[in-house]
Amino acid sequence: MKIALAQNNYHIGNFESNISKIIKGIKQSEKEGVDIVVFSELAISGYPPRDFLEFKDFVEQCLSAVNTIAEYCTNTAAVVGLPTFNPNEKGKSLYNSAAFLANGKIMSIINKTLLPNYDVFDEYRYFEPNTVFNIVEYKGVKLAITICEDLWNVQDNPLYNVIPMDELISQNPDVIINIAASPFNYHQTKVRKEILKKNASQYNLPLFYVNHVGAQTELLFDGGSLVMNSKGEIADELKYFEEDFKIFDLDEVNNSPPTNYNASERIEIADIHDALVMGIRNYFQKLGFTKAILGLSGGIDSALTAALAAEALGNENVYNVLLPSRYSSCHSVDDSIQLAKNLNMPNEIINIEEAFNSFEHLLKPYFKNLPTDVSEENLQSRTRGVILMALSNKFGYILLNTSNKSEAAVGYGTLYGDMNGGLSVIGDVYKTQAYELARYINREKEIIPENIITKPPSAELRHNQKDSDSLPDYDILDEILYQYIEKRKGPKEITAMGFDPALVARILKLVNTNEYKRHQTPPMLRVSNKAFGMGRRMPIVAKYLG
Amino acid sequence: MKIALAQNNYHIGNFESNISKIIKGIKQSEKEGVDIVVFSELAISGYPPRDFLEFKDFVEQCLSAVNTIAEYCTNTAAVVGLPTFNPNEKGKSLYNSAAFLANGKIMSIINKTLLPNYDVFDEYRYFEPNTVFNIVEYKGVKLAITICEDLWNVQDNPLYNVIPMDELISQNPDVIINIAASPFNYHQTKVRKEILKKNASQYNLPLFYVNHVGAQTELLFDGGSLVMNSKGEIADELKYFEEDFKIFDLDEVNNSPPTNYNASERIEIADIHDALVMGIRNYFQKLGFTKAILGLSGGIDSALTAALAAEALGNENVYNVLLPSRYSSCHSVDDSIQLAKNLNMPNEIINIEEAFNSFEHLLKPYFKNLPTDVSEENLQSRTRGVILMALSNKFGYILLNTSNKSEAAVGYGTLYGDMNGGLSVIGDVYKTQAYELARYINREKEIIPENIITKPPSAELRHNQKDSDSLPDYDILDEILYQYIEKRKGPKEITAMGFDPALVARILKLVNTNEYKRHQTPPMLRVSNKAFGMGRRMPIVAKYLG
Repeated sequence: MKIALAQNNYHIGNFESNISKIIKGIKQSEKEGVDIVVFSELAISGYPPRDFLEFKDFVEQCLSAVNTIAEYCTNTAAVVGLPTFNPNEKGKSLYNSAAFLANGKIMSIINKTLLPNYDVFDEYRYFEPNTVFNIVEYKGVKLAITICEDLWNVQDNPLYNVIPMDELISQNPDVIINIAASPFNYHQTKVRKEILKKNASQYNLPLFYVNHVGAQTELLFDGGSLVMNSKGEIADELKYFEEDFKIFDLDEVNNSPPTNYNASERIEIADIHDALVMGIRNYFQKLGFTKAILGLSGGIDSALTAALAAEALGNENVYNVLLPSRYSSCHSVDDSIQLAKNLNMPNEIINIEEAFNSFEHLLKPYFKNLPTDVSEENLQSRTRGVILMALSNKFGYILLNTSNKSEAAVGYGTLYGDMNGGLSVIGDVYKTQAYELARYINREKEIIPENIITKPPSAELRHNQKDSDSLPDYDILDEILYQYIEKRKGPKEITAMGFDPALVARILKLVNTNEYKRHQTPPMLRVSNKAFGMGRRMPIVAKYLG
Repeated sequence: MKIALAQNNYHIGNFESNISKIIKGIKQSEKEGVDIVVFSELAISGYPPRDFLEFKDFVEQCLSAVNTIAEYCTNTAAVVGLPTFNPNEKGKSLYNSAAFLANGKIMSIINKTLLPNYDVFDEYRYFEPNTVFNIVEYKGVKLAITICEDLWNVQDNPLYNVIPMDELISQNPDVIINIAASPFNYHQTKVRKEILKKNASQYNLPLFYVNHVGAQTELLFDGGSLVMNSKGEIADELKYFEEDFKIFDLDEVNNSPPTNYNASERIEIADIHDALVMGIRNYFQKLGFTKAILGLSGGIDSALTAALAAEALGNENVYNVLLPSRYSSCHSVDDSIQLAKNLNMPNEIINIEEAFNSFEHLLKPYFKNLPTDVSEENLQSRTRGVILMALSNKFGYILLNTSNKSEAAVGYGTLYGDMNGGLSVIGDVYKTQAYELARYINREKEIIPENIITKPPSAELRHNQKDSDSLPDYDILDEILYQYIEKRKGPKEITAMGFDPALVARILKLVNTNEYKRHQTPPMLRVSNKAFGMGRRMPIVAKYLG
């Protein structure tokens, strides 16, 4: 039996595009004598469709699509993910389903049992868990079809009380098929392989796994669909961060050890880089935009954002604007110009003094000789924000936000100023990781000027300002933030690791009291297992550690 | 047996304040010979604690608090809501619990069975559903203690497969106690009473219901705790939108018909008004702020916001800034001044021309004689935004956002301009409802000048601009939006109601393609059953109806 894996980049709610990609995969499979072609979870709707699922009209369009697709499944069968209505009187109104299409029609519907409802996942918001377990038999081969999380309850401290494969194994399946929408983070690829290996080896079955690929706003799907033999050895895997399509022979996978395949060793910083580039590219493509604008400050964050955007969109499509004020250093301008030159990106210098002065003059009677403070610093940042947005509006650029995760965490940024943007590129990248990424981008030649990487970070909103005036060194700050945000450690646990208790208290308080700012930030491309945004839901008005 | 209901306004994560309110309730109960005092759901943590629940430290503080509180329960028992750890190896790590405290210690822990996970609720994100059902016996009275949603599975098309009271009734309870955190919307009070009535009458038991009161950022809890006899007749109810405490005799409730109690008829617009005032007040109180700033445009939305803020914070604490440009009409300035006078609110006129001109001049070389468009309109709005934020930063005011729901829906507003603010006061109030609210505020005397209510709405960002230039009449717009947003009707269903198909398509497209703007708006006080924000989660990059 020949099984094909079709790893596609779907677009949420874009039925025309999604259907056409699925039909293309079926046609290609048929041409190459494939028996079954497998598409990913909720392929028809795109993942995650979120509250579109509450619209009957949306689900009906998915059902209409699967009927259209089924007509193409005459010689080749297909496994396709979509939402379906729950026909029972009780329970949530939908299932997260896999349709098995053959002989020109829907032969079976398999529903997802384990519904992730943590971090970025909200599946129990929409779906009723499955309680009925049946394998699908096709051309004499018994398929255990499962959906993503269905294979994940094999970890310590199991989250669910049922293990779908334990139910299916009694029906003697020959192969496990899993259709998934498992988003990237820089720990995930390794964890995912371990989970799949546990399943294949525990049930002694070959495993065909198809993941989504592509960005859905902040969620980045890395692909990496794969095939394992019944020992849990990887027979082959599909591309990462790209669409791919491959055909396998079940007997070959089953019987021969994968002698000639060496599973790719993933390099963390390269994966983060590729994920961010894909994230920018797909955000623009799927919204129908081509050009980005951003403010180049002379610092590492905007330089890194520009370099990533240039790779994603093409150098000529990244418009770099330098917005110096009286506090900007010469090297900031020079370094920025050098970066733009290195990548041959369009750039412009717009001095903000005229507008900044007019605000200062206009506000003078109301500020009543009160001492200069953060208000004036924010004023500069917001003046820049207004200019960038004016150019964005006039020419149809999308403004890229350049804040990093360390800043976003402690609120070191100006709302309606440098926190502006349609998309935050490095909002899930700590400052220390930003340096690593810059070094990675420069791995072959100097793209980001060395001086940008080595000089002490500064917002340049007053004379001789340095980040270190108000924040601890980034290697300390980032470690405390990582323990608090990614690891959900409390103050006592972090202090016990050897950090100064007063510093820990101060940092955690900054994180919690700046929730209101993060509430208004653009979506941030997610590369960690705990990013700000949809996966981290905090009260704004609260007092805990605040 | 004497049972007291303690309806308190908790503050999420403010253990000191929450514990002190609970202990105060216990002491008062003890003084008045109360046998059991009942507090609301998750009273110790405040509701909803959201991802604070993922911090072991946070839950441990709740457990430490309940032990402290238990020590006060010597003569009076208490029912108190808090999160507890799930001791089982499988399942989510927490329960949403009610602790029954008596004789100075925790006598029982009752866990919530039905976990709402729709709209603004995320309980299945954190909690394992209960599967063990036991009544609590105290002083010879058998209590069926339930938590909020546990009583709600009595509607058509039940959402859950189990009904906790069906399990408990076999143990012959004498009374139903329900601790709740049921947020307000202008349909909710009625629905809630019907649900409770069904329970009391179906199980033929008296019912003691304690709800939260107070605002938790966007969620507004209206209180309205109540007592029903076993026929489902309301014996008494506690205050709405205020803390309250009342003592009842179980036998009296049980045996006598509530002849002398007339359940309050709620007036929808008055409830919305009171909810919004509470929402503003609590937002400021709980963040430790006293003063608000807002831009008065001369239109209905900012006038209404100012009037609501004046009631919430005191007239003297609402700083009204008029920010006219060359496009502002005389009547806009006059009307705004009149409003400020009527409420004796501080106000200031700051003409934006100087700053607006400097941006125009600065941008001229880059705009290259391109025709004037929405870029210049946004520029004015953002100039205003910068000035308001500068004053907010300098003097510690919180900027109030004045956008209404109709505008927010179709994206009729400027990001980083008039969409700025710490809190959106009327972001869940349609334009047509804004007029109703203004009339309600003027019910006794003219507070909002009549001219503001009667003149045609305009953003005044270009000469002779009217909202009706680009939008349909608000009564049509709001009805289409209501069907789409609140009722989740699709284009076919809305068109079938008699609306122009092209108009419906245009409006729905505007709603969906402006998701990116709403992603960056301040939290909006929620008064409907489907508000923008945490209860409506839409993809940003998507194509459905877009």
